[in-house]
Amino acid sequence: MSVGTVHGVGLGPGDPDLMSVRADRLLRNARHVAFFRKAGRSGQARRIVEGLLRDDVIEFPMEYPVTTEIPVTDPGYNAALSGFYADCTDHLRGLVQGGEDVVVLCEGDPFFFGSFMHLYTRLKDDAPVQVVPAITGMSGAWTATGQPITWGDDILTVLMGTLPRDMLADRMSHSDAVVVMKIGRHFDKVKSALKDAGKFDDAWLVEYASMPNQTVQKLADAGDRITPYFAIIVVHGQGRRP
Amino acid sequence: MSVGTVHGVGLGPGDPDLMSVRADRLLRNARHVAFFRKAGRSGQARRIVEGLLRDDVIEFPMEYPVTTEIPVTDPGYNAALSGFYADCTDHLRGLVQGGEDVVVLCEGDPFFFGSFMHLYTRLKDDAPVQVVPAITGMSGAWTATGQPITWGDDILTVLMGTLPRDMLADRMSHSDAVVVMKIGRHFDKVKSALKDAGKFDDAWLVEYASMPNQTVQKLADAGDRITPYFAIIVVHGQGRRP
Repeated sequence: MSVGTVHGVGLGPGDPDLMSVRADRLLRNARHVAFFRKAGRSGQARRIVEGLLRDDVIEFPMEYPVTTEIPVTDPGYNAALSGFYADCTDHLRGLVQGGEDVVVLCEGDPFFFGSFMHLYTRLKDDAPVQVVPAITGMSGAWTATGQPITWGDDILTVLMGTLPRDMLADRMSHSDAVVVMKIGRHFDKVKSALKDAGKFDDAWLVEYASMPNQTVQKLADAGDRITPYFAIIVVHGQGRRP
Repeated sequence: MSVGTVHGVGLGPGDPDLMSVRADRLLRNARHVAFFRKAGRSGQARRIVEGLLRDDVIEFPMEYPVTTEIPVTDPGYNAALSGFYADCTDHLRGLVQGGEDVVVLCEGDPFFFGSFMHLYTRLKDDAPVQVVPAITGMSGAWTATGQPITWGDDILTVLMGTLPRDMLADRMSHSDAVVVMKIGRHFDKVKSALKDAGKFDDAWLVEYASMPNQTVQKLADAGDRITPYFAIIVVHGQGRRP
């Protein structure tokens, strides 16, 4: 019996029409589909592919044992997730050793943050794994603003809101274009860092990029709360343009 | 008569299978297709869509009056390109005012560097323009390396090889993950900056990402010459992973 393949398939920012032709084909033909979700939720990756899967698809939801209940600095966080990823990997490895192909649904681009890479590193040495890149969530966000993110020789820096305030401000001030993700409870800190870097007034807040409920507004006009998972801040470069 | 739409359609890194479902549909239905190319060349964007276009498609090649013959700092460079973009825009505006839709082929993602944005800014206030985002060339490159580019809270900085050496080294040293594009004649300078930043030994060189002639090698193992237009250097972040 031949061994199957694990396909880590990027789904892009959220609009199914923005998946790649290859992702679309793999999904529609998939007998086994695995995806991450928070316990008790349907899961964003699974929602994106709603209506595209085979009637006889076998789904394997992988439910995070923790998300934000424990700080990432707590050793219990790493231990819980490490065991979880090992369990998921065991299941996928069993399927491919039994000759089955499996599509793992990945929001955004599989190798640009995200959870798939934790399966990938555990699988790649003893199972065939193929990765399908995708449009990143940040690309969906800057496209939504209707302005190019970078021109000419612009520097683009991508920052997580989880970083320390002074580091954020420093990196923002040394970049032309800036993208900030993982903002959630760090919203005030990120805004403060943008002000220090002189970029607050030029910043845009995009929520649910490319999805039906997409919103785009100047950050200065935004309220005090954001959607934890689907908010991206964008500051456009203003580089050379003939 | 209704006005047409200009579609700035990102084609992704080069493999037609990595275009979005929307891009694929727009292309296959397009009556008018416009694309940039160097004079006397077929053009990379046009090559990507070979075999996908309608038999009766009307093509509008837009040939750069200059590419690297004049330094970008020369006022003549800006003047030549500015007139060129204005001429291209006039042609596209004429088509949409005549009720025609036009697809402009864009390598990579239309709002992430590239030439389409120079048409976009000239057109957007007096013609309907829709932009289809795409997988970036850099995403094609890091996927080709078989390693995730960013983990956890990693900072990613995207740099053009055209920047001054000390600025490159500084930004590289203050980032976890690094992507360098537009390397060409700046190859030695980029390598020197990576050495200063302590990242040379971890750097990968990807040429022709996602294309049939793709190559992936450690930068330290690469020769002294690279493909000017299709070379991307990648340094992976090594952030938190459970």
